[in-house]
Order: sequence, then C-alpha cells, then structure tokens
Amino acid sequence: MATAQLTTDRLAEKHRSTLDQALSTIRTRAYWSPYPEHPKAYGTDGSLDAAAGLAAHQSALNTRFDLDQPGTDGWTGGETSPYGPSLGIEYPHADLDVLLPAMRAGMGAWRDAGAETRALVCLEILARISARTHEFAHAVMHTSGQAFMMAFQAGGPHAQDRGLEAVAYAYEEQTRTPAGRAGWSKPQGKRDPLELSKEFTPVGRGIALVIGCNTFPTWNGYPGLFASLATGNPVLVKPHPRAVLPLALTVKVAREVLAEAGFDPNLVALAVERPGEGIAKTLAVRPEIRIIDYTGSTAFGDWLEDNARQAQVYTEKAGVNTVVVDSTDDYKGMLANLAFSLSLYSGQMCTTPQNLLIPRDGITTDQGPKSYDEVVADLAAAVGGLLGDDARANGLLGALVNPDVKARLEAAAGLGEVALASREVVNPEYPDAVVRTPVIVKLDGSKPDAQAAYFSECFGPVSFAVSVDSTADALELLRRTVREKGAMTVGAYTTSADTERAVEEVCLEESAQLSLNLTGGVYVNQTAAFSDFHGSGGNPAANAALCDGAFVSNRFRVVEVRRQA
Amino acid sequence: MATAQLTTDRLAEKHRSTLDQALSTIRTRAYWSPYPEHPKAYGTDGSLDAAAGLAAHQSALNTRFDLDQPGTDGWTGGETSPYGPSLGIEYPHADLDVLLPAMRAGMGAWRDAGAETRALVCLEILARISARTHEFAHAVMHTSGQAFMMAFQAGGPHAQDRGLEAVAYAYEEQTRTPAGRAGWSKPQGKRDPLELSKEFTPVGRGIALVIGCNTFPTWNGYPGLFASLATGNPVLVKPHPRAVLPLALTVKVAREVLAEAGFDPNLVALAVERPGEGIAKTLAVRPEIRIIDYTGSTAFGDWLEDNARQAQVYTEKAGVNTVVVDSTDDYKGMLANLAFSLSLYSGQMCTTPQNLLIPRDGITTDQGPKSYDEVVADLAAAVGGLLGDDARANGLLGALVNPDVKARLEAAAGLGEVALASREVVNPEYPDAVVRTPVIVKLDGSKPDAQAAYFSECFGPVSFAVSVDSTADALELLRRTVREKGAMTVGAYTTSADTERAVEEVCLEESAQLSLNLTGGVYVNQTAAFSDFHGSGGNPAANAALCDGAFVSNRFRVVEVRRQA
Repeated sequence: MATAQLTTDRLAEKHRSTLDQALSTIRTRAYWSPYPEHPKAYGTDGSLDAAAGLAAHQSALNTRFDLDQPGTDGWTGGETSPYGPSLGIEYPHADLDVLLPAMRAGMGAWRDAGAETRALVCLEILARISARTHEFAHAVMHTSGQAFMMAFQAGGPHAQDRGLEAVAYAYEEQTRTPAGRAGWSKPQGKRDPLELSKEFTPVGRGIALVIGCNTFPTWNGYPGLFASLATGNPVLVKPHPRAVLPLALTVKVAREVLAEAGFDPNLVALAVERPGEGIAKTLAVRPEIRIIDYTGSTAFGDWLEDNARQAQVYTEKAGVNTVVVDSTDDYKGMLANLAFSLSLYSGQMCTTPQNLLIPRDGITTDQGPKSYDEVVADLAAAVGGLLGDDARANGLLGALVNPDVKARLEAAAGLGEVALASREVVNPEYPDAVVRTPVIVKLDGSKPDAQAAYFSECFGPVSFAVSVDSTADALELLRRTVREKGAMTVGAYTTSADTERAVEEVCLEESAQLSLNLTGGVYVNQTAAFSDFHGSGGNPAANAALCDGAFVSNRFRVVEVRRQA
Repeated sequence: MATAQLTTDRLAEKHRSTLDQALSTIRTRAYWSPYPEHPKAYGTDGSLDAAAGLAAHQSALNTRFDLDQPGTDGWTGGETSPYGPSLGIEYPHADLDVLLPAMRAGMGAWRDAGAETRALVCLEILARISARTHEFAHAVMHTSGQAFMMAFQAGGPHAQDRGLEAVAYAYEEQTRTPAGRAGWSKPQGKRDPLELSKEFTPVGRGIALVIGCNTFPTWNGYPGLFASLATGNPVLVKPHPRAVLPLALTVKVAREVLAEAGFDPNLVALAVERPGEGIAKTLAVRPEIRIIDYTGSTAFGDWLEDNARQAQVYTEKAGVNTVVVDSTDDYKGMLANLAFSLSLYSGQMCTTPQNLLIPRDGITTDQGPKSYDEVVADLAAAVGGLLGDDARANGLLGALVNPDVKARLEAAAGLGEVALASREVVNPEYPDAVVRTPVIVKLDGSKPDAQAAYFSECFGPVSFAVSVDSTADALELLRRTVREKGAMTVGAYTTSADTERAVEEVCLEESAQLSLNLTGGVYVNQTAAFSDFHGSGGNPAANAALCDGAFVSNRFRVVEVRRQA
C-alpha cells in the first residue's frame, strides 16, 4: 500500500462520511442518497455532463473492450440495442483455468486490508461510476431497452445506492467483532484469572460469481457485486449476453480503483460467453466459486439453488405480483398510480403488478360505487391517457427488451377479453425499436381455465384484471399466489381498516412486501435503497432481500485466533 | 397479555439488563456470564441446591413425562444412562398431523409481540432452567455420560450462555430496522416531497426443528432453539433417543413460561421417536418445517443439507481436529494442556484434538530438543499421570456414551504402535459405567496406509501422534485436513513468529478456529459463549458458527408495509 496512489487515509478523507451516513440510514430507513438523480447535476467535480457521457458511450461502440485480464483467449460480443443499433463491441473471453486462479491471488492482501479499507475502496469505485452516470445511462438504455431517463436513474444513482447499501451492510456485519487483538480474562475465585488474547478476522469465502440480467444489469448486479467484494471475496461478473456493456464498464472501473489502491486488479473480472456457450452453468458448479448472485428466470434460479451446492446462492427469480382492489377514497389517484405502474418500462420490471384482483360486484370509491367493468374500463382509459402522447409514451415505455416479451404480449390478447389493446408506438429517433403499450386482459377468477393465465408469470406489458367473488376471495387468491408462485411486490387499495389488517396479515404470513393505497408519486414497483426492502427472501420469488443482514452475513466467516496471554 | 402473569413490564424488569449486557458483550467479546458455574452458587433465590436438584431428578425417573401436547398418540422412551441405570421415563409420542398445525396456531401472536418481548420470554425460560441447573446436571450426566461436574457446567451455565448469546444476536438482528411506523420523505425540488409511512415487521419462517445430539443435548441444542424462538418461530425439539430428558425438561419449562406470559405453549413442543422410527428424516422434509438445527454425524448432516431443501439448515457435523506441534517455550505446560484436552469427557467432544502433527526430527523446547519419540512418550506420561488416580480419572473422563465409541477405541490399538494404552477405570458408584482412558497411537504420516486412519474422524478417546517430515509438511497436512475433512478446532505450539504466521494463514484461508500455545487452564476444546466462535461455518465440519449474524439473520424475514402518508 506504500506506493499506492489511493492511500487508506485519502480514501477515508473522501468517503468515510458517506459510509457513516449510509450506516446511519440503513437503521433509520429515512430517505437519503449521495448520488444525484438529476442529469443536470453532473458535469462538475470531474463528472461527465450529458454531452461528455454521450461521447464516452459512442467512443466505446464498435471497439474492442480490453480489460487486460489474465487468461484472455479470444474475443466475443454481439450486443444489439433494443432500440435497433448493434453495439459492435468485443469483450475478452476468458480461459477459466487461468483467470480463476489469478483472481484468488490477491485475496490474502484484500483480507488483510480489513473491512474499512475494503468498504472505502468500494465507495471509490461507486464514486467513479457515479461520475460517469451519463455514460452508464446510455449503456443501460442500449442493452435493457429502458428509456433514457429511467436508464439514467435506475441504472445510475439508484443502482449505485443499492451498491452502497450493500457495502454499508457488509461493513456493519464485519465490524461486529473488535478489530485487532482483544483481551479476555475469566475470574477464577482466589486463583489467577484465565487470560487469553483474541483476534477476529473476517475472511471471504472464495470467488463470488455475479450472473447479470438483461433488464437491470447494474441495479440488480451491484448489490451482490459490492456485498461480496466488501466482505473480502474476488468477484467474477458474468453479464447477460445482451447486457454486457454496463457491467464491463463497472468491472473496468473496479479494476482501475483496485490497482490504484495497491490491490490486485484481478479481484474483479469479467466473463463474457461466446454465443450458446452457457458458461453460467459451467461456472456455477466450479469448486472455486463459493458465492453466486443471480437475477433471472425461476427455472435457472432453481437450478442454481439445486446444483451449485458448493456456493452460497442468492437468487431473485420470478413471481406473480398482485394488487388487491377493495375500495379507495381517491379513485383518480389510484387509477393514475396503477396506470403508471403498469406502463413503466413496458411492465418489464420484476416488481410490476400483473394480477389486479377486483370484486365482480364492484368497489366503493370517493366517486361512488364502481362496477368491475367500470374499474377496468377506467383503468384502461387511465393507461390510454397516460400513453396517448407518443413522446411521453416513448419516455415511459422504453423498448421491449427481447422478442420473447413481444411474443408473450401478442399471445396475451388471446387469453381473455381485451380491456385495453396494446398499441405500437413509433420512436422517431430509433425506428427499429419495438415499443408497445400494455395490454389489459379481463379474466374470470372463478373459471379454472383462466387460472392457467393469471397463475403464472407473464413477464412484460401484460396485466390481468381478475374478477373475484369478494375481497375475502381476493385475499385467499393473494395468499395462494404468494405461497405457490411468489411475489416481489403486493399492492392493495382499501378504505376498510379490517381489510387493511387482513391484507397485512396475508403479507406477514407469506412474507411479501406490501404497498397500501399508493395514489401519489411513489409506485408499487419502485423501492428505495437504504429504506425499502426489495423482495423478502421468504417467498418463492427470491431467496434473498435487498438488502439485509442475511444478504451479507454468510459471504464471509470470522476466524478467531486465540493465544495464551 | 392482559391476564398474563408475566407481563412485558415484569419481564423487562427481570431481564432487560441481562439482555443489554449480553448485547454489549457480543461486541466486546470480553468474558461474561450471568449463570453461575459453581454448584454451591445455587440454592438461593428459588434455585435448587444440590440436594433439591438430585431429588427433582430422581422424582422424574420411572414416570411418565407429560407435556400436555396436542396430538399425543402414545408413549415412548427407553433411555439408559451410560452409567448403567435405566431412566425408565416415558415421553409423549406425537401425531405430527395434529401437533404441527397446533404449533403454528400461536405464531401470529408471537410475531406481534415483537422482538423485545420474545427475547425477554426467552430469558425467563433460561432463568428458570438456570434455577434448575442441579437437576439438569443429573439429566445431562445420565444421558451423555459426562462426569457430574462437566454435566453441571457444560450442560448448565455454559449451555444457558449459548442460548442467551443466540437470543442477543437474534434481538440485535431484528432491531436493525425501527419498530413502529417511520416516516420517509423524498425531496422533489420545488414540488412537494414524496411522503410515505413505513412499518417493518420481523416474521418467522415457520416451524423450526432442533435435532439434538447424544453428547451435548443442551449445549448444542440451545443455540438453535433460542435463535429460532426469539426470531418468531415455533420450535419442535427432536432429541437424540438416548438423550431425551434434558431437552424434555427444557421444553416443559419453555411451555410453562410461554403460557404464563400469555402465549400459546405449543410454540415449543417435543417429538420423541419410537425405537427405529427415524422421525428426524420424516420431519426434516415436511413442508411445515422451515428451519433445521442439527448436531451429529456428517452423513446425516449432509443428507439434511441435500434433502431438506424447504428449510434453512444449520449443521454441526464432524471434523478432524489437528494440533501442530512445532516448538514451545513451556514444554510442561504444553504437555499438561494437551493431556487434559485429550482426556476431558473421554475425547467425546466435537472439539477434541485427534491428530497431533509432530516433526519426525523432533522439536525445540525450553527443556532442550525433544525427539518425536520423546514428545509422544512425554505426552503419554502426562496423560497417564493426569488419569493415574481413579477418582480424578472418573471426574474427568465420564463414561463412554455408547458401544460404538468403545468399539472404535478398541479397534484403534490395532492401527499403529500404541504409545499409551487405554485402561479400564472402575467407577465405584456406577459399576456398570464403561470408563476408559484415551489411547494414543503413533502413525507415520508419510505412509499411505496410515492416512486411512488419521484422515477420517475417529470419534472418542483416540488420538494419533502423526510423524511428519517438517513443520511445513504439517501445515500442508493441516490445510488438506481442514479443507477436505473439516475441523471444529485447530491448535498449534510454536515459538517461531514465522511458523505462527504460517499456521494463522492456513486457518484464515481454510476458515478454521485456531488456538495458539495454550499452556494454562484454557483448552483447545473449550469455547466461551459471547466471546469464542464455536466452529467457523466455512469448512466441512459445520455450515454455521455459534454464534454470529449468519446464524440468526435468515431465521426470519422483514416484511415492510408502506402507506401513502
């Protein structure tokens, strides 16, 4: 560390107060973020402004993205933006038998650096990523299909928040035991006390694998990446083949910071697969891989949990998110809130509501009773109004991330009576982008054949307005859905204290995160780092929550050395 | 709670300061225990003195141990003391289809009570157990075969300490998020801030199963039992068929306290099997069982990890504990310390050293160089001297817990040159007790056929003095042993700073708990709650450590309810 440009003192000066604020906020759960949400906040203090970010992005296109990793045995790539253009970037392909041992080489020094230095190095990585938020926004937009503003916020500051949150949890967890040697003295009555000197060292488990997803490469990738790195583990990042660039940029920044701080840059590396190679499966069962973070399909998440037995496996899979509509004192607010939730990023969020459970006899509202048909029609009108203007629609919807989503959307119209048809939106800037508004399909909850549709995840801009016999019936269906299919989010609208209590009870019993009566500018599909838990880890949608003690505490072990004093 | 005898206020008055001290001590890791180690400390404040404890124990013999549990469909039992006498106690046998649903019934109220009340109820249970420590000592002695003083201390205050430690970790983990509703306000520039009210509730996962062991029914049973109960889970205790009484007493106390505090006593229940019934396997894969704590053989521990996939599984299995003997500046102290470690409870501790790795060219000591043969002979003499007096031998050794241990001991003499033969010790009070001193067998570490002996666990009073080419050779064997076979403990004796650092490095890299140069009254096989970690959870001997954040943090989930403010 003597010759490092980034000394621990310098890192502490830059980041210790941010770490302290994060540590405080994960306890108060108040609002806080050190990373600006507004694009215009960038451009000073060495950060890239909009023009510089775009230029940086464009300069990466059609080039070879070199990371100077050991064991590079070729080049691979082939990302195409959901907005149309091919990115033309080639990434290193790794010989795992060379790369994995090289990643372990720096683990001892990283362990010996201690929890605080590891946390501060992570914060420096995040700060440099933050400074390039404009550049990351384009990378996220052109891999996930998110609209620019969402790519900017969710892929930038919100993802960085989740990374910092993980670092804070990791630091807190590792510093539960005293650093350095501590005395221990046990009285023995009249005899001399028994005395020992004890030293506790958090040690990483081994190489951590992050398996990235297509839709939120940074937001879903950063928690695992930073939790593992901060707890002393090297991290190998295996991006989704359609969404490599945001994580490749991340790995590059991490390697630069590690080297400048005097650590082995190979503590963070990238593994990009050749088309059809399927390296996630190969990597997942290698003995060197001791931790896996995964976001994606239930099928592969279950496979990982069943097969990667040598590793701690953290999965976020799929669920069937439900909103119970019982009654409201702000009908307009409810419709507007739901319309936005269904539209944002074309419903391609793991948190987007899918099933809206509405009593077939209708609901009570501040605008009088509304029948099931009226509620569905009014919601359809709200979505239609929200997305009536093409420019606004493009800004909210983004593009469909891949052809599977489009195929599901098209098939959904055949599942029942279409209350709101999906329409094609033209994106004048990117004519090849596949932009679609959501479809809302009416289903009779009492019909067994309808159940096949609403009782499984239909990822994309598809919602089902499911008619139920009563709110009690809705709650029973909610319970069964969460228990059997899982849920990242549950929403409910009710003016009845009894119903509110009953919905809460279902969510408490089935471990689901509940949003009640959202009618303003917060949506059921959004969670804020430091305050909201993303998933619960207690239902089939995910075996972990972002972020809590369980997310970090088993990524390291504490080794005690005790000596005769 | 209104009509409960034990109100939360009353519980807080009695136990809040103890909880606070425990919370503070798990951070400082200093010595502390609220439960007296000395038998004479009991008899006041309503606790049982020696005579009353013995009388209570005797009154339980040859009776039916009724717990008033739902679903009792018969009676079973058949414990025989390793000291000879049959206990003659019958326990309820459970119809699981009745008992398990009954156990879930009180879960909602237990959840709603909150983390503090749950912790205080657990502390009341522990306090009542503590008051009956003399009675528990006899129960532990006559099921495990431990000598009375060890049964008293390890089965009494030390087990209670481990239970309290788990409660403290559980409480701390659950109170990371604020209790009650907390506000959240996100500034929106010139617009009104976004405002939500948020409420975080720790919820248990479901019924927790504790699978007890024969040798330390309370010490190994309490951490899981109290960690699960304190985090909101009902707990079903399945004792080892040879060691039911200590856990049956525990369950009875827990049920009494729960009822007095206004909770459903069925939150804690006992499941005793009929001979050969094998209910651990049946229970382990039932969907109601969401958490399992297990101490015992590697084979069944691995089976649980592989098959009880619906549950969080915490296992303590077997390892091959190793002591590296490189050099010492207190030869006599080293020999005395090792002799005691090998003798205590006839080596029937999961932490007892098995392999003593000694360079074939000998070691340096404060008494001059000692050859391999001299070290082994001197150690044999130290053990012989320690156990030369039958009364002292009986007090240290206890009885062999079961015929398997005796068979292994007898077979061990055929594995190599016997440096110290095991001898039979007569216990005048219990002539049927099988009491044996440890055997020490010399093995040549370079001989492949010797490896079959020392490279697997030989549970019982059997140690191998393994000759190695050098200390470097010893460290390589240590590393391989921990990595492939696991270890609950590692010991080392060295006066060389380089060797010390090298042993530490192996233990840090392989996640093993290390004791260095113990020559006084602390032994490698003992760990103190609140300070020492028992196991690391990072090598094959155990997938969890007692006690750390990871041991408690996944026994519950946090459910968030957020509302439009």
